[in-house]
Amino acid sequence: MTLRVGVILSGCGFQDGAEIHESVLTLLALDRAGAKVRCFAPNVPQARVVDHLTGKESKETRNVLVESARIARGKVEDVAKARAADLDALVLPGGFGAAFNLSDFARKGKDATVHPEVARIVREMHAAKKPIGAICIAPAVVAKVLGGSHPTLTIGNDRGTAAAIEGCGARHEDCPVESFVVDEGQRIVSTPAYMLGPDIRHVAEGIERAVRAVVGMAQAAPSPR
Amino acid sequence: MTLRVGVILSGCGFQDGAEIHESVLTLLALDRAGAKVRCFAPNVPQARVVDHLTGKESKETRNVLVESARIARGKVEDVAKARAADLDALVLPGGFGAAFNLSDFARKGKDATVHPEVARIVREMHAAKKPIGAICIAPAVVAKVLGGSHPTLTIGNDRGTAAAIEGCGARHEDCPVESFVVDEGQRIVSTPAYMLGPDIRHVAEGIERAVRAVVGMAQAAPSPR
Repeated sequence: MTLRVGVILSGCGFQDGAEIHESVLTLLALDRAGAKVRCFAPNVPQARVVDHLTGKESKETRNVLVESARIARGKVEDVAKARAADLDALVLPGGFGAAFNLSDFARKGKDATVHPEVARIVREMHAAKKPIGAICIAPAVVAKVLGGSHPTLTIGNDRGTAAAIEGCGARHEDCPVESFVVDEGQRIVSTPAYMLGPDIRHVAEGIERAVRAVVGMAQAAPSPR
Repeated sequence: MTLRVGVILSGCGFQDGAEIHESVLTLLALDRAGAKVRCFAPNVPQARVVDHLTGKESKETRNVLVESARIARGKVEDVAKARAADLDALVLPGGFGAAFNLSDFARKGKDATVHPEVARIVREMHAAKKPIGAICIAPAVVAKVLGGSHPTLTIGNDRGTAAAIEGCGARHEDCPVESFVVDEGQRIVSTPAYMLGPDIRHVAEGIERAVRAVVGMAQAAPSPR
């Protein structure tokens, strides 16, 4: 039985969208694990557009779904179409897009709001006991949605971000870039990726291991259908 | 001695820039090989901007160097600054950016013109007998610049593209996605990647093997300095 995994993208570029390396490494690890991947993103304007050469905000407007299609090579769907019944696992790569487009965690910390359809699919997956993987800053989205269940997560070791995540109700555990944290009970896997970096080989190792853990969880207890 | 490798990007997104997966997989393979990478791109407007969700051209204007910075996480330099004396090898990922921004091969085939600074660094590397790796459609750029030396290259098995490359003076050799073609004499390595695809794991395998071949060549005969 082929594992069906949803990946939620948040644009294309770490300063204003999905972190590109993390997203590609996630797609690669899932493909290598034999999973059938569907990419999703919210169909909304980006909260900001950043010139990645200068690091400064530009006056352009770009759409999160349209820019996500660059990473997904055109194959990306509105996250409103994501259904837990159609998926065995869900993975959220990081990048500022998770904290600006999937949520406003970058601006509001523990008081953030999560895009309603992103929040819905995360809640649906959790309720169905299907595993969720969250990379880099994306655990903040999970913490905000599922904080009431007090999941254990990592965003590496940044004290301010860890405190904001704990302010959402989650428990934070420090973790090196090559590794990952598993909350077996909540079925949530997280890895710091470019919250720590700095090198792509270390980010890749953490993501490969985290994705294998997500896939292993999904295979160990496939949902009834 | 750390190997210094230049990577020439051509934007961010396969329809109008560098193929994102190929670029990231190149950066990963180089980092894993212990190479120190410098990314370069031409500082010019993109020849086109394509909405990757619909596949249609949009009226936006974007800059190749600025968009390439999304893949390079901000660390990308004008290709005019690339010097063969500072590099041990050069790799060109693919995507339509290679055929629209690094050259106009997509429009003119064998009669294409290559961006002058891209042509210069490719010629400099070749003259210095330093290895060049070309991925996907990027061998067309190499064929156009070095056609007079008749390098053997692959772009997979597309007859029209292969004929255009041979029209530049190169020899084309069919190759499966997981593999690569080496011209030992010219020190040029090529792999089809998403010219064939379709899956990222196969593209990754071909790129990993091609990059290892480039690195091996560079290590086997380091240039005097």
